Amino acid sequence: MFQRPRGTRDILPEDMDKRKYVEEIFRRTFKSFGYREIQTPTFEHLELFTAKSGEGIIEEIYAFKDKSGRDLALRPELTAPVIRMYVEKMQMQPKPLKLFYFGSCFRYDRPQKGRYREFTQAGCELIGVNTPAALAELISLSWSCLRNIGLKNMVLKIGNLDILQAVLDKLGIGKEMQRTLLPLIDKREYGKIEEFLSSEALSHSDTERLIHFLKLDNIDEIESFVQELGLRKDSLSHLRKVISFLPMFDVNDFKISMEIVRGLEYYKGIVFEIEAPSLGAEKQICGGGSYELISLFGGKNVSTSGFAIGFDRVVLALEGEGFKFPSSKLKTYVIPVEEDVLSNAIQLTMKLRKRGIASDIDLTGRSLSKSMKYANSINAENAIIIGKKDLEEGKVTVRDMKTGEQRLVDVDKVIDTIV
Amino acid sequence: MFQRPRGTRDILPEDMDKRKYVEEIFRRTFKSFGYREIQTPTFEHLELFTAKSGEGIIEEIYAFKDKSGRDLALRPELTAPVIRMYVEKMQMQPKPLKLFYFGSCFRYDRPQKGRYREFTQAGCELIGVNTPAALAELISLSWSCLRNIGLKNMVLKIGNLDILQAVLDKLGIGKEMQRTLLPLIDKREYGKIEEFLSSEALSHSDTERLIHFLKLDNIDEIESFVQELGLRKDSLSHLRKVISFLPMFDVNDFKISMEIVRGLEYYKGIVFEIEAPSLGAEKQICGGGSYELISLFGGKNVSTSGFAIGFDRVVLALEGEGFKFPSSKLKTYVIPVEEDVLSNAIQLTMKLRKRGIASDIDLTGRSLSKSMKYANSINAENAIIIGKKDLEEGKVTVRDMKTGEQRLVDVDKVIDTIV
Repeated sequence: MFQRPRGTRDILPEDMDKRKYVEEIFRRTFKSFGYREIQTPTFEHLELFTAKSGEGIIEEIYAFKDKSGRDLALRPELTAPVIRMYVEKMQMQPKPLKLFYFGSCFRYDRPQKGRYREFTQAGCELIGVNTPAALAELISLSWSCLRNIGLKNMVLKIGNLDILQAVLDKLGIGKEMQRTLLPLIDKREYGKIEEFLSSEALSHSDTERLIHFLKLDNIDEIESFVQELGLRKDSLSHLRKVISFLPMFDVNDFKISMEIVRGLEYYKGIVFEIEAPSLGAEKQICGGGSYELISLFGGKNVSTSGFAIGFDRVVLALEGEGFKFPSSKLKTYVIPVEEDVLSNAIQLTMKLRKRGIASDIDLTGRSLSKSMKYANSINAENAIIIGKKDLEEGKVTVRDMKTGEQRLVDVDKVIDTIV
Repeated sequence: MFQRPRGTRDILPEDMDKRKYVEEIFRRTFKSFGYREIQTPTFEHLELFTAKSGEGIIEEIYAFKDKSGRDLALRPELTAPVIRMYVEKMQMQPKPLKLFYFGSCFRYDRPQKGRYREFTQAGCELIGVNTPAALAELISLSWSCLRNIGLKNMVLKIGNLDILQAVLDKLGIGKEMQRTLLPLIDKREYGKIEEFLSSEALSHSDTERLIHFLKLDNIDEIESFVQELGLRKDSLSHLRKVISFLPMFDVNDFKISMEIVRGLEYYKGIVFEIEAPSLGAEKQICGGGSYELISLFGGKNVSTSGFAIGFDRVVLALEGEGFKFPSSKLKTYVIPVEEDVLSNAIQLTMKLRKRGIASDIDLTGRSLSKSMKYANSINAENAIIIGKKDLEEGKVTVRDMKTGEQRLVDVDKVIDTIV
């Protein structure tokens, strides 16, 4: 027996229905905001990802050589591919350019609940505008996607990396130290942060100050802190402007957070994350912000921002909230009782199908009772039982599979009876 | 500048719209026939594909090792993964089991028009029934998918591999010779067929006989041929039965063909192909039939059949027929003329979006004329121009971007005006 590769999943029909429900509402929401869908290849030149994230990423991704010796990699995320595509093909398009996507991504991770080696991301990139209103709209879009699918328990956190960067610089925490420190901030591991900064001989008072800063979530207190440190306030005013626009975009519930790190190499300015607290350790379901990648990829620099939603986790979070996904049951199962009526049964089934009514028919020739059992097991809503004698009088039996109620109806009126 | 890997594609918004149109109608058609959607991983253990198609396939696919030394491969097709999934997870489900899928597949091919290294397949597998009526229904489903998207110029060919196999056996063309011969038959390369058979010392009359047989497309003539050769006629009667059911399933236009080969290692019995002649060399857009894979993959044998549609080629074929794909234009572009009205403009835009009306808004603060130019360039249907003075009187201007007609309407009636 063959098994699927470790860390990957087979999606069974019931789960697929849930995923298609979420995907369709995400798509509708992206479109309602004026975004347009695109698709990039499943693999890219490895260099694209090392240029963005450094050589270290090779350890975490599926990298391989093709038969011509090219270094390729299964994409670990979609922002780099989309910006690569923009630079290659879309630079001349009118701005702002609003693009969204769905796609499989791949990471060579230790598999665990809510964390797979192949996972789906939904996301978007906004190219060519970075006014506070535009960033508020972007945040609103991510929030709208998640709210529109019916997710209730979510926390939106917004920060500004320029403020964090200025504080780190001021405290003398250089690039080298940041490389170790930032992932610890990202994971909110304060014990390890203190340990690390002490090992790097940062003064106890500066360590305290940094930790105090990271935990601030009130914009006035952040302003005071920034002022005390003697830093410029433009990043703070920018953050203030962005959040002042949020209520206009129907986002009334958010927190300010200085703990958001993301990828400090290319994220700049506004960043945001959405968590579904019910998911525990893997609670982050969305992350985004402003970033700079275009010039790195050889394009003419314009402002860029975007976000990605962890599709699989969102489905888990909805399930966790006991959300009732719409079911896609089979509407009718047609059962020809004798072989003589098979042709009529087929033609009725095809008529139903053409009307868009999901219908199936027994073509195994098995007994009525076995067919009824099957109709039941696949959760068909109705069974249409076609017997020779009834049919000679132009009638068929329609059975409601839930109530067991049976009615003899005119063949011509079957559709009206069912719909 | 980074480029996408050779043989892969970026799908731009305009092309994506076309693909989504086709995908949605395929999905609706599959569902109307009682099929349910599934998804398998993008890569599988390499062994799965060599077990099905032999070691030779390694040359044609993306095979690689993961960091634990596992041999993996990007899937070149979806039947093996789906059957692997069935054996692993779905054997106990009630039969027949009707599954459909969409997915990227990968082949290390020389790129050419209509042939990419990453391509999309749509398809289905029917597990647990192989009556003639069920096979006719399967053929009808493939035909319905293609007809429902609006494709006109198609040729459906149906054959039976058991007949071909019996003829080859009778003429003394053994497995070894078949390995070279069958791909030549598949490509209808009759010159090379003659050359090869003569090099293998098959008598001239037997070569003539085989070629005569392969070109037969009349079922009565095929029957006479089979009879003359002294072969059993059950496969022929089976084929007759299948085609007798096709008109009931709304398939009235098809050809019988003995030239269909597919993968003779696992295909057995009924096979079929659909061609879009306008596509030239890459005209095959669908292939399917009955096959045996379950026991090879360690499962309890039940009958299986299915088909796969070359999604990319279907889109090309539709384009070639000049098909008018539905457009997904932006319905409204909102332009706040002064910054004072930005908040009102945002709120109106959000109201439109919540009503499901794809709407965008200028958040760059640029001039009215520049915004109008942008609205025009993105093909927005309407522009809503919001000026301070009008708004004080509760009015906004709605401009039909096509006709240029402008109307001053009540803010509360904007939605009615647009829809």
